[in-house]
Parts: sequence; structure tokens; C-alpha cells
Amino acid sequence: MSAQRKLCMIPGPIEFHEDVLASMATPATSHVDPLFVPVFGESIEMVRQVVLSEKAQPFITSGSGTLGWDMMVNLLEAGDEVLVISTGYFGDHFAECLEVYGAKITTLTSDVGARPSNEEIKAAVSAKKYKMVTVTHVDTSTGVLSDIKSVAEIVKSISPETLVVVDGVCSVGSEEIRFDQWNLDVVITGSQKGLGVPPGLSIVVASPQAIDVFKTRKTPVPSYYSNWNKWLPIMEAYEARKPAYFATPAVQLVYALHTSLKQIVAGGVEARFAKHQQVAADFRKTVKDLGLKQVAQSEESSANGMTAIWLPEGVTVPQLVPALASKGIQIAGGIHKACATQYFRIGHMGISVMEDERQHIQKVKNALVSSLTELGYKA
Amino acid sequence: MSAQRKLCMIPGPIEFHEDVLASMATPATSHVDPLFVPVFGESIEMVRQVVLSEKAQPFITSGSGTLGWDMMVNLLEAGDEVLVISTGYFGDHFAECLEVYGAKITTLTSDVGARPSNEEIKAAVSAKKYKMVTVTHVDTSTGVLSDIKSVAEIVKSISPETLVVVDGVCSVGSEEIRFDQWNLDVVITGSQKGLGVPPGLSIVVASPQAIDVFKTRKTPVPSYYSNWNKWLPIMEAYEARKPAYFATPAVQLVYALHTSLKQIVAGGVEARFAKHQQVAADFRKTVKDLGLKQVAQSEESSANGMTAIWLPEGVTVPQLVPALASKGIQIAGGIHKACATQYFRIGHMGISVMEDERQHIQKVKNALVSSLTELGYKA
Repeated sequence: MSAQRKLCMIPGPIEFHEDVLASMATPATSHVDPLFVPVFGESIEMVRQVVLSEKAQPFITSGSGTLGWDMMVNLLEAGDEVLVISTGYFGDHFAECLEVYGAKITTLTSDVGARPSNEEIKAAVSAKKYKMVTVTHVDTSTGVLSDIKSVAEIVKSISPETLVVVDGVCSVGSEEIRFDQWNLDVVITGSQKGLGVPPGLSIVVASPQAIDVFKTRKTPVPSYYSNWNKWLPIMEAYEARKPAYFATPAVQLVYALHTSLKQIVAGGVEARFAKHQQVAADFRKTVKDLGLKQVAQSEESSANGMTAIWLPEGVTVPQLVPALASKGIQIAGGIHKACATQYFRIGHMGISVMEDERQHIQKVKNALVSSLTELGYKA
Repeated sequence: MSAQRKLCMIPGPIEFHEDVLASMATPATSHVDPLFVPVFGESIEMVRQVVLSEKAQPFITSGSGTLGWDMMVNLLEAGDEVLVISTGYFGDHFAECLEVYGAKITTLTSDVGARPSNEEIKAAVSAKKYKMVTVTHVDTSTGVLSDIKSVAEIVKSISPETLVVVDGVCSVGSEEIRFDQWNLDVVITGSQKGLGVPPGLSIVVASPQAIDVFKTRKTPVPSYYSNWNKWLPIMEAYEARKPAYFATPAVQLVYALHTSLKQIVAGGVEARFAKHQQVAADFRKTVKDLGLKQVAQSEESSANGMTAIWLPEGVTVPQLVPALASKGIQIAGGIHKACATQYFRIGHMGISVMEDERQHIQKVKNALVSSLTELGYKA
């Protein structure tokens, strides 16, 4: 396998803009420096803009995307009922996390590549009173896109008190999200996918309703690092352009986030949604023309930031991944426990999608076609 | 206040080497890429070397230094007795964290600037059976250095089963630590102080005895993101040069850590201890010659990576900090709740200490002298 750096076309980390990388190399700056305070404050504001909200509360903290799951400890009390709509590995593990914090989990799932229907969701939400319904917007293990707008509509029409929590780790910045309009309560993401920033930041956005549930909880939050009692005053302070301290923020990553968010906001999020949809549709057409089948079972349930594709007969992940690597392209194998060896995954998010002149998508298509041909596959 | 970048002479984040900053800008690389796997694996090994251990288990995770406190949830079960030896703000908050996880805290403290004596520690450890004794190696709020060698000696001689947990956030990489020889069980740190890497990595080192306590605990770990059941297999895999996944590591920060650890190991940790001691002693002499008094009450209880200094009569933090800032030097105000407005803090760690040719220490001394003079202080 090549020891050279490859174009990173996995479902995150994605390729990063040169200006974002330059921000990563910002020389030492105090977390309370008047230079840094507005950078953090503006980043909080721009996260809100990216999810199309006017009133939600962003939390930007140092940690992996997974830390966002952990923060749901702020909204749960022992014994709370949670409905987890799972479309793969990440839905299942989100459930595992919530269970640690005392949630009683009901999982609604379906076959690999499918997603529970609106009727099934309606029935599940009607059957029991849930404190929270979680849904993985794009499950990175299957490339299945959930219809979070409908999920929220269903949940809120049956039980307005129930919180709608979206795992948007592989969707914020690449999929259409209308936080306020769709009545979402929480969107969780990480820095390294649609937001185009190196990994290391956990980003969570919470609705006023979610913050209210947090503030009126009856038992103390059984966590220290994830505790919003610690983080909320910090976020409010920086947004008010005042420094504050709970734990040292990842200053350089926040500079990088600021740079990327400025690009995203300047380009317009509507245009960003549309471009990701167009490039993804075109990518799926290439897959289809090659005679391959994607894991997601329909066009409307296909993610716009990544595609999971079944391997053709006779081609394996340990053959295909190195074949593309030798052509300078990093793709990913499968991770769904039911079928990890039977498919592969390609990411198409961020600058690889938004900046045609980089030719990233064309390069991955070319490398995929020639690798499959080398491995004896005929379309 | 100047809007230009200043030399960051606070007790962390410290100044970063150009090569470390260049590593921060490493282009997108998959966390399972064969290029990255050995970088992570070697970093784990070098962390062990920096604390002079042969058998301890490092955990390198995405998060602030504070996350290291949180990870003590792996070693505690509800009702466990913990003795917290506190020398300031960070000791007190470490106690607060452990309490969230069900620990019954006994705090041993002393006046600001002092530290509990060995006799007091001996008496406290003899009075009750503790699951864990924690000690802040350098409390960043006071600049007080604890004698962790003696603490461990006392604890282990009275109660070998008791775990000795060192908060080394402001000491790893700048203070003498001999993990194996001194019988330490846990050392916690962050990336942005003595290790010379931008903030965003939590680093925890655990002894075989601590790992054994973790593995034989009777109740499940009540945390998800901080759970060593998740992280231990990841650390073991990367050290064996195999990729593994729980949460996406902060790839660029790990590259930066690798670069800095290589420099530290190449220079030799013994030489690093000695240089920090020498520069700190010299810095304290300057403080004394200026007629100022440091917060730490004795030479032997003074940190070698930072100094906290009482403000002279008539000079305030809102005067002194901007005065140094206007000369291109960032220093920090106080944070100890009993006396935050009465003192200031200066960091002297990492390249600012190890590379004389940068003249960082001379610059901060010059700026301090001229700022005090401007503000009407006469030595």
C-alpha cells in the first residue's frame, strides 16, 4: 500500500481547505486573549446559522463527535423512555450510550439499507410516551439518509413534549437541516465531516425546549466533563464576547472551525445543500452505470455526503481499498456488523463537492473504475 | 489592548515549536490510514517514556485536560473514599468532579501558597482507608509544587492498595516525574502545557495496579465517552500498529503531539527537568530582586513551569496585563477564588525554556520590569 498521502475520500475526516489548515497552525494564543474571544463567539453564531436556527444554543467543546452523544446525559434522567430510530452501527451505539445514562431504550430498526417507514415511526411514537426520540440523519455505516423533517413532524404532532434528537455527525454541512422550521431539539455533530475541519471538536445544538428540559431536571447531571451546567455559561460568555473558563478550549481547532464556517456561510447553506444533492445524485448514477448497487435502498433514502456500495462478486475490501490507495485515493471499507466485508464507502462532502476545480469527485470515479477493471470486474 | 499576537507566556497554552504547528496543518488523513497508525502508536510509547515508565498504559483522547479528571470514573465506585490533597483551584475542582461520580471526598488543604506537610498527609492517610489519594502536582492557580514522590511514598507505605492519582496538567513535560520509581498510579495531563502541543488532547497514564482496579470493579462504569472499556482496546491496537475505532481521534493534534514528543525524547527528559528547574530558579531570583513575593511559600514548593506572583501595592491586574500585552507579552491574572485580583501568573515551559536563543524568558522579564516601572512601582 502506498505510503504517500492520499486524497481522503472516506465519510470523514474529509479533505480540508488550505485556509482551514493554515488556521490549524495559528501560533499559541491564550483562550482568553481578546484576539481569540471573538473568533470563538462568531463560531458559535455561525454554527447556529449553518443549521438555520435563530434561537438554538450551540455547544462547541473539545472532543470527538461521540462526545455529543454523551451530552444527552443532560436531558435524560434514570428511567426515561427513549425511542432510537436506528439505520445502522451509529444508531445502535447511540442507544448503547444513552443506556449508560439510565435510559430505557426502544429501538426501531429495519433491514440493512432500509429505514423505518413513517407509519412505523408513527406507531412506535403512539405506543408509548417518550422523553426523547433519536434519529441518525445519515448513518455512516450504511449511507442511509433519514427523513428527519417527517420524524420531527410525527413526533411533535403526537407528543410535543418529546425531544427530537438528531445525530447529524455525518450530515451537518452536507445535508439539508432546518433546525427551527422542522422543530428539532438537538443536532449533534463533529468537526471533521460536512463542516470541513480536522477532528477534535464536538458540536451540539440545542433548542430552547431542550435547554428548558435540562434546566428543570429533577436530578443532578451524573457527568462532569459533559455537564451543560459547566458549558452553558462558557458558551454564553464567549458569544457575549467575554472570556470564561471551565476547560481550555481547543484554540487552534476553533480558529479552523471559524475559517471553515465563514466559507460555508459566505457560500450560502441553501447552495451548499443543493450542490451536495446534485453531486451525490451524479455519483449514484456513476455507481449504477457501473452495474453496482448501493446499500441505501432508494434514491430518497440515500445520503448526499457519502455513498455505501455493495462489492461486486469476486472483489473484496482488502483488494479494492489498496487498489484505490495505489492511485492516491483513500476510501473506506464497511463497518456494519451484519455485512462489514461486503461493501465499501466513499465520502463526498465539503470542498471535494463545492469546489469543482479540485476534481476530487472525478478522481475518485476514475480510480474506482480502473481499480474494478484491474480486479477483473466487468460492468 | 494590542490586537497583535503576543508571546503566550501564561501557564498554558504555551508557545509552540514551528514544527509542531506545521504538524497541526497536516492535510486530511484517515484515522485508520497506514500513515497515521504508527504516528499514534509511537505517540503512546513516547508518552510512557516522558513519564519514565515501562509498563504504564497511556490514554490519548480527544478532549481538554479536564477530561482526564472525568476518566477517574473508571477507578471509582459509588461510596469510595477519596483523599484530595488540594493546593488551589484545580485541587478543589478535581474534588468536585470526583464527587459527581459518587466519591466521598476528604479534602486536605492549607493556606494559599502553602501545601499540606508530609506529617499532615501521613495523619490523613492513616486516619481512614482510601480508595484513592489525589494530588495536584502543580496547581496552576497558585504555582505550588507538590512533593508527589513523598506523597506516593507515604500512601503506599501505609496502604499499598490505595491509588495515587497525580493531576499533572501543569507538570508533565516540565516537572520531574518518575512514574514507575515513585509508584504512581495515574498521571493526568493535557497537551497544551509542558508537552508543547495546542490544546485538545487529554492524556492519562495508568499503572498496572490502576488498570487492575478498573478491570476488577464490581459495578459498570457510569460513563460512555470516558469509559476505558472503550478506549483501552483502541490504545492497545494502535500501539500494536493496528487501526481501531471507537471515536475519531484528533488526527492533526496527534501528529503535533508526535512531533513534540519526538523533540522531548530526543533532548532527554532528565535534561528537560534540569533546564526547567534552572530557568525557574533564575526567574524566581528576578522576582525576588524586583522586591516582589511569589505566592508559593518556599523554594522547594515552587513550580518549575510557572510562577504566581503577588501584585505590589498600587498595581492591579487590569493595569499590568495590558501593560505587558502592549509590549507583546501575554501573561495571566490570578484565578484562586480567595485572592484572584491580588496576583498574576507567568508560564515558563517548553520551547520558551529549552531554547535560549528564542529569548522568551528574557523578553518577559524585560517587559515585566518596564511595565512595573511605568505603573509607578519602584523595586
